[in-house]
Amino acid sequence: MVIKKITTVMVLNLFAFFLIQAQENIGGTTTQIRSPVKHEDGSVSFHLHAPNAQTVQLVGNWMASSPDSVIVMSQDARGVWSATVDSLPSDLFLYYFVLDGLRINDPSNVYQIRDVSQVFNYFITEGEPADFFKTQDVPHGTLVKLWYPSQIEGESRRMTVYLPPGYHEQHADYPVLYLLHGMGGDEEAWPTLGRVSQIMDNLVAKGQIAPMLVVMPNGHTSNQAAPGYSARGEYPIEFRTPDVGSGVMESTFMEVVDFIENSFRVKKDKKHRALAGLSMGGSHSLFIAAANPDVFDYIGLFSAAFRLTDQAGLNIYDEFGKNLERQKKQGYQLYWIGMGTDDFLYQTGVDYRNRLDRLGMEYMYHESEGGHTWSNWRKYLIEFSRLLFKD
Amino acid sequence: MVIKKITTVMVLNLFAFFLIQAQENIGGTTTQIRSPVKHEDGSVSFHLHAPNAQTVQLVGNWMASSPDSVIVMSQDARGVWSATVDSLPSDLFLYYFVLDGLRINDPSNVYQIRDVSQVFNYFITEGEPADFFKTQDVPHGTLVKLWYPSQIEGESRRMTVYLPPGYHEQHADYPVLYLLHGMGGDEEAWPTLGRVSQIMDNLVAKGQIAPMLVVMPNGHTSNQAAPGYSARGEYPIEFRTPDVGSGVMESTFMEVVDFIENSFRVKKDKKHRALAGLSMGGSHSLFIAAANPDVFDYIGLFSAAFRLTDQAGLNIYDEFGKNLERQKKQGYQLYWIGMGTDDFLYQTGVDYRNRLDRLGMEYMYHESEGGHTWSNWRKYLIEFSRLLFKD
Repeated sequence: MVIKKITTVMVLNLFAFFLIQAQENIGGTTTQIRSPVKHEDGSVSFHLHAPNAQTVQLVGNWMASSPDSVIVMSQDARGVWSATVDSLPSDLFLYYFVLDGLRINDPSNVYQIRDVSQVFNYFITEGEPADFFKTQDVPHGTLVKLWYPSQIEGESRRMTVYLPPGYHEQHADYPVLYLLHGMGGDEEAWPTLGRVSQIMDNLVAKGQIAPMLVVMPNGHTSNQAAPGYSARGEYPIEFRTPDVGSGVMESTFMEVVDFIENSFRVKKDKKHRALAGLSMGGSHSLFIAAANPDVFDYIGLFSAAFRLTDQAGLNIYDEFGKNLERQKKQGYQLYWIGMGTDDFLYQTGVDYRNRLDRLGMEYMYHESEGGHTWSNWRKYLIEFSRLLFKD
Repeated sequence: MVIKKITTVMVLNLFAFFLIQAQENIGGTTTQIRSPVKHEDGSVSFHLHAPNAQTVQLVGNWMASSPDSVIVMSQDARGVWSATVDSLPSDLFLYYFVLDGLRINDPSNVYQIRDVSQVFNYFITEGEPADFFKTQDVPHGTLVKLWYPSQIEGESRRMTVYLPPGYHEQHADYPVLYLLHGMGGDEEAWPTLGRVSQIMDNLVAKGQIAPMLVVMPNGHTSNQAAPGYSARGEYPIEFRTPDVGSGVMESTFMEVVDFIENSFRVKKDKKHRALAGLSMGGSHSLFIAAANPDVFDYIGLFSAAFRLTDQAGLNIYDEFGKNLERQKKQGYQLYWIGMGTDDFLYQTGVDYRNRLDRLGMEYMYHESEGGHTWSNWRKYLIEFSRLLFKD
């Protein structure tokens, strides 16, 4: 038998060839430009190689939303457009470019997040809380995408579940946080924009929270899954408008709890269940918690869309006043309300807290800067989860 | 107490307001243009609103990879650039636009797949096999992203695991297919480009395969996770070059099997274990299977990077000849080889089959059209998995 000796150089050449060919046969490569670039002093530079463009602008979610707050980028002799932003706070930021009026993503940045119908580039700065949003060298939990049987239209529905580090190795039972998204989200929102895996992993590693499951269902009962995962067809075709206010999510929510408790190793009593949500999900949470006063000991309302009507022709809404009183009577460990001072829902939060005061219902109120943003919701998740499951 | 009656119209207005504000405070919206549009006759149109562009081209992975095979799009009076492509086969396709020389993704298409360092738009046409790549109205399996403890650099490593429909409800044990990616991939490659969840769900629903787990580890032992999920830092910073040929993946692979068998409800004998991989992962598979002749009864080599050296200074490679003979002696159910006639590795496949012939090792050979592409690998997965676990 002939022994063929392959030298290291030959091997490397062969593998360089693989590296090109192992892709599909699509032509072209992305630009060699690196963007964004985070500098030592905390500033961040953005670059786009577009020699033929007339104007390029940078739009980021740290800017005010008026047209004149965008940054006009400047072009160098090679045709590279650049802008540098100073003194960003510690956070996860979204951005895109506008090239001669056309919105595009940064072709040099592979990090993107879909927010229902829009895809944004993102980057994360340094310090706290941003370090909680990054994968750190700590034990990691598991992220599960599954479908559960639902009574809603007789379909199965998709959800995301975070299992804490050690779930597969240790044969323990864990408490559960049910975490609901807002009107602009789906079962992908908390895991991506909300950085749930990273936040929970890092909080567990620091010993600041109990290891827990986080259950993130799709709160739009008019859709069974996020775009790209539904059997109903493609976005925007066959993708239905949100059914906020239909009462379906709130009225059927216990099927989610039942499925989780039958499928995972969890503790199945009130003191090991928490329920929180942002915006529309905050509204869902307050109605669900009140209608099921024996189920949840911890309730979190993050910039909640407070609906103060008791007259909607739907039991879940009509009986809210009665349910709240029952919830007060049955008791709970924590009723946590987070709200930003610039939130367009700020006054509804004031009204709701007044209502709780009149009822004599205890709550913890956390007021932050800023508005109706993921920047606040990520921080509220950190604050709220630190208070959970203190037996 | 004042009862506030909210009419449906008021509610809808309020929710329309939420729909805008429930996003972060980032300015601008995406274009109202729909793209791509799939027509009844099977043709597909692409559109981009860019009134200021001088030229826009369409580049798709169905085109030959020469520069003159790209499609020059044409502009209408409103500044919308368009192109229509006829008679595409049934498949999943990747594409992008080139606007005045700048590669961009289609801002109207939220469906994107990252392929390590590049993000592509995609769409799926009709018929077979494309219908296998879509979420259909059938029972769905679960996709799990987890980290497992590894002896490699003492770190944990990330993998994707598909659990078959019914895993959470039925308390059965399942067979396992270990499915390895190529040099251009990571633990996200088979689940995204490879459409593993959709293919397995649809094959199970048609009764064409046994319900099984599919385990998709990261085959680059120089990295612990795909870009965006590693504690080592961001891509391309701190992202290491592939370590193909180091022998580490092949030599340590049994830790993956052990982890799976300790963590999930699976059958733990040779006749319920399969191992397959594409390109580099095919090379991994043949070395791992030969070195562990009592472990896998089904081996699949998809466009494998056949390495026929027996002299590399590493046991896993040096003892390959001896291991193959042992594998022949211990026996196996299926040794499946798939190769495209245009594959740049075609001749190495001929040589490898000659070697198996000389050894008297049985194999099943599946030759297809085309080259070293995901289009073939998805089809090979369908063909191969139909042959598995026939007790």
